[in-house]
Amino acid sequence: MNEKKQKNMSNSVKDFNAYRSKMNDKILADNNKIIKRIFNLDTNAYTQGALDVKTKELLGLVASAVLRCDDCVKYHLETSYGLGLNKEEVVEALSIATLVGGTIVIPHLRRAYEYWDALESQSESS
Amino acid sequence: MNEKKQKNMSNSVKDFNAYRSKMNDKILADNNKIIKRIFNLDTNAYTQGALDVKTKELLGLVASAVLRCDDCVKYHLETSYGLGLNKEEVVEALSIATLVGGTIVIPHLRRAYEYWDALESQSESS
Amino acid sequence: MNEKKQKNMSNSVKDFNAYRSKMNDKILADNNKIIKRIFNLDTNAYTQGALDVKTKELLGLVASAVLRCDDCVKYHLETSYGLGLNKEEVVEALSIATLVGGTIVIPHLRRAYEYWDALESQSESS
Amino acid sequence: MNEKKQKNMSNSVKDFNAYRSKMNDKILADNNKIIKRIFNLDTNAYTQGALDVKTKELLGLVASAVLRCDDCVKYHLETSYGLGLNKEEVVEALSIATLVGGTIVIPHLRRAYEYWDALESQSESS
Amino acid sequence: MNEKKQKNMSNSVKDFNAYRSKMNDKILADNNKIIKRIFNLDTNAYTQGALDVKTKELLGLVASAVLRCDDCVKYHLETSYGLGLNKEEVVEALSIATLVGGTIVIPHLRRAYEYWDALESQSESS
Amino acid sequence: MNEKKQKNMSNSVKDFNAYRSKMNDKILADNNKIIKRIFNLDTNAYTQGALDVKTKELLGLVASAVLRCDDCVKYHLETSYGLGLNKEEVVEALSIATLVGGTIVIPHLRRAYEYWDALESQSESS
Repeated sequence: MNEKKQKNMSNSVKDFNAYRSKMNDKILADNNKIIKRIFNLDTNAYTQGALDVKTKELLGLVASAVLRCDDCVKYHLETSYGLGLNKEEVVEALSIATLVGGTIVIPHLRRAYEYWDALESQSESS
Repeated sequence: MNEKKQKNMSNSVKDFNAYRSKMNDKILADNNKIIKRIFNLDTNAYTQGALDVKTKELLGLVASAVLRCDDCVKYHLETSYGLGLNKEEVVEALSIATLVGGTIVIPHLRRAYEYWDALESQSESS
Repeated sequence: MNEKKQKNMSNSVKDFNAYRSKMNDKILADNNKIIKRIFNLDTNAYTQGALDVKTKELLGLVASAVLRCDDCVKYHLETSYGLGLNKEEVVEALSIATLVGGTIVIPHLRRAYEYWDALESQSESS
Repeated sequence: MNEKKQKNMSNSVKDFNAYRSKMNDKILADNNKIIKRIFNLDTNAYTQGALDVKTKELLGLVASAVLRCDDCVKYHLETSYGLGLNKEEVVEALSIATLVGGTIVIPHLRRAYEYWDALESQSESS
Repeated sequence: MNEKKQKNMSNSVKDFNAYRSKMNDKILADNNKIIKRIFNLDTNAYTQGALDVKTKELLGLVASAVLRCDDCVKYHLETSYGLGLNKEEVVEALSIATLVGGTIVIPHLRRAYEYWDALESQSESS
Repeated sequence: MNEKKQKNMSNSVKDFNAYRSKMNDKILADNNKIIKRIFNLDTNAYTQGALDVKTKELLGLVASAVLRCDDCVKYHLETSYGLGLNKEEVVEALSIATLVGGTIVIPHLRRAYEYWDALESQSESS
């Protein structure tokens, strides 16, 4: 991959995280108790339990994909990548999402592939 | 808030409304009777009745948020803002949407916060 | 209304609550922390805050209706009824749900009407 | 098909229509203007226009199937049957719904087949 | 558990499977190529690959739960049970579904618990 | 229409197709059997059968619209356009989608109109 393209891709990861982080801060600063607790649960739900963290990330990924939430898919792709799940495992999870959720999942599959490439590219460039 | 940022934000409100308005005109010009009547109902449904207009706007907002329709959320945020609903009330409505609709609502919550900021900023700059 | 029909209707309320209550007990006995906290939030979210409890119930009702969750609709109808919301107010909320969510909401509207009748009938017979 | 089974099946059609009709009457008697107009649109939308009525019924059927609304599917199956659409055409429409909507549509496909059988059986027995 | 209740519960498993099986046969007998291939994919998608079969069943379960498809949930619960997944693992998967999909998942959680009990009860009684 | 605007519009068609095509190639290169077969079915499902190709495209369009998948709507608009379906037919199909799916479909209706204009504009400019 040429350097310029690599930079663009890794920027898409940075931009996503920067926006996500900035807005999460604003939301949490607002002190709505219900929302704060849901955010808190969102962190706790994916920790090691009867199921290991990798499995849980894939569960979160598939739930996000069938509900067609691009930002949620990106988030779980990034965590999956960080946990060392490989592309074949992630794609297999997404194939189940596409089968269960139907062809309307395909546009989200395209963007998931694009984001995975960005994650790999960011990692190479760092 | 510095002036430049304020301008960007108020532009996001203007851009949304300009696009919405332009396309609605095109749709209505087409004279499809079913679509025209649905547009018409959309105006009538939120007028004062057994429930007051503020409550109805919040009902429209929560319905839009759990169905994860960003443009619908923006529209109801703007009307809510115009009716004098304050941020705490709006956020409380959105907290119910997030609980009922789950964490997949969170990305829409981020964009709702951003649009509310734009509405406040537009109001300050005018 | 004749007595027999009244009894059937009020039974539908009792049966719904008995099943709901029995299964909730089983779920909570399981001690899954995430699920317990979500149940807990579900209680807290509808308490008085910036918005009053009646408005919040209607928000929960509309969210449930557009997401087409019959049991959730029943639950919020029952609480709304208990809070003294009248039928016209509830129906107006449901009319917004039907407009925003489309004609696929209509079958749920039928069952909502049926359950509201059961609530009224139970109340008369007690 | 033996007579008893035929009777059961044709009853499932009658029961569905009786309940639907009874509750629709209650809803319309309530005079909520928004709901009444949506019911009215629901009748107008499927009349002959640029597209013929058969095509429109199939559009309603597929929309109902991917949104997984059993009662709506039944309704459109019955109208399709009445318009003389044959099983192969209806199944082909449902196959598109299953592909677009995913394997979660399959349980609704089962119930659609069952209802189609009931429609055929009612017709034979009458 | 007393014997009678045990029998009722195990019947709910048998009834579900009998209906599912009978209608699947009818659907497949119809020879619609698209539907047949989707059924075929549905079998292949959950076989051992980069991910093991237990993980894949849980992915199918969570996808079904957030899309609120009771029959799909039952099917994956039954396969999960057959594969030796324990209740704690299954509940943890369902807790993620409830968090991601929101409180509208709770009624499906109740029915999932009930079906899991039926599976355990059937197993004891056999 | 002035030339510059016409060019922008026809670019929106080209850009959509270029991205779609590039990402589809990446996905298919990955050789996940389930995903490849779903892509394959997606081609087969819309070929002539008991229903003609125009009807099938409209079924795909309406399914996509009620499930609010912009990219799927664009794809079916483009194929519909290529098959010679006229705007009135397409809009009538979309009016059914808007009625069945509710006012949350309206933002997608706006983008559908915009894309149809782009298709017409591309055709004029070529």
